[in-house]
Amino acid sequence: MRIFETKTAPNARRVRMFLAEKQLLDSVEFVQVDIQTGENLSADYRKRNVTTKIPVMELEDGTCIGESVAICRYFEALYPTPSLMGQTPLAQATIEMWQRRAEFHLLLPVGMCFQHTTGYFKDRMTPVPAYGEVCGKQALEFMATLNDHLAASQYLAGDTFSIADITALCALDFARVVKLRPAPELTHLLRWHAEVSARPSAKV
Amino acid sequence: MRIFETKTAPNARRVRMFLAEKQLLDSVEFVQVDIQTGENLSADYRKRNVTTKIPVMELEDGTCIGESVAICRYFEALYPTPSLMGQTPLAQATIEMWQRRAEFHLLLPVGMCFQHTTGYFKDRMTPVPAYGEVCGKQALEFMATLNDHLAASQYLAGDTFSIADITALCALDFARVVKLRPAPELTHLLRWHAEVSARPSAKV
Ligand SMILES: N[C@@H](CCC(=O)N[C@@H](CS)C(=O)NCC(=O)O)C(=O)O
Ligand SMILES: N[C@@H](CCC(=O)N[C@@H](CS)C(=O)NCC(=O)O)C(=O)O
Repeated sequence: MRIFETKTAPNARRVRMFLAEKQLLDSVEFVQVDIQTGENLSADYRKRNVTTKIPVMELEDGTCIGESVAICRYFEALYPTPSLMGQTPLAQATIEMWQRRAEFHLLLPVGMCFQHTTGYFKDRMTPVPAYGEVCGKQALEFMATLNDHLAASQYLAGDTFSIADITALCALDFARVVKLRPAPELTHLLRWHAEVSARPSAKV
Repeated sequence: MRIFETKTAPNARRVRMFLAEKQLLDSVEFVQVDIQTGENLSADYRKRNVTTKIPVMELEDGTCIGESVAICRYFEALYPTPSLMGQTPLAQATIEMWQRRAEFHLLLPVGMCFQHTTGYFKDRMTPVPAYGEVCGKQALEFMATLNDHLAASQYLAGDTFSIADITALCALDFARVVKLRPAPELTHLLRWHAEVSARPSAKV
């Protein structure tokens, strides 16, 4: 099984961290794709993932699965322990809710701030700097929302580490690239950040 | 159990359609929220959903679950038949992949085109019309991608109807509001659209 990814990209890190938590990193061969030069825009790559994005997973029979969370879901279903997506209906819903909140209100705005203010991908999309600025503000606002939430919750989805923490960590760390940092008074967010960053999976 | 929603909003429709497919509509009380006037921005609503968005589900004990797909996941786990999110690891991953593609490349750009070109929510966000235009183009491009895919696939995730079709249908129908329509030559997309629109769940 192979995963096509770009080591430094936040969506690739989500999958690596998920696999590391499940002790499955060694069962996958990682193939590096240079997204900066647009290697992912080739006809060949598009056959694996029509969206042209990384990461994409290729099974032995050639079947390809794109979308970071879909790749994680595959491994969660095959190797349910330790669970990162929840075991009861309510746990599954709660984790999915926080995973999505972290994705729509942090990872996405950070990514849009990056793309639209730096023009890093201007060979393939139209940067609108004013929109990038708006997204930067949204990301900072959501850091404050997360901080309030983490005052009474060890992890995003309660007292167990989950895929929601992975998404939020990858987003928060990538935010550094566009200088979006949690304000020092967001002590609960910073406590959580230190805790999840100390996990071995955060280093892979 | 209650779901706070806005009848005309695409994310609310996703959940209603999902529940209708499972014959569960009658087990939920729907409470209408006027998002146009900002009823969802109240402190009271925010207690149910920190993102302030609709829909949000409230269980008998007061527990609230936000995010359309998280609400769907709760019902899928409790009532697995008919399955709308897949039963094998590969089916689950494939459906999640297409659900997310439909969400990130169609529903989201259509929503952004709406918000940023019409200024409908300008009391609570900063419209950037140039970004709205970019999103409109992205949505049209993804309609063509979907059309190619549907040439060889009955539904988005293969030969079974799934939550991926629900997301795509709600996105495509909402796109009408901003006059983004599939070009007449996208015959496979139009075939699929006619088919899924004929399901009783598409009318609720
Ligand atoms: N929703 C996708 C997002 C993937 C994504 O945006 N990947 C970025 C890197 S983090 C990418 O491929 N960028 C290159 C490009 O846009 O051409 C997922 O969850 O996998
Ligand atoms: N990711 C959320 C999106 C929810 C969303 O954007 N809802 C819109 C209506 S379709 C809303 O609440 N808009 C009101 C507002 O933004 O104030 C979900 O899947 O539930």
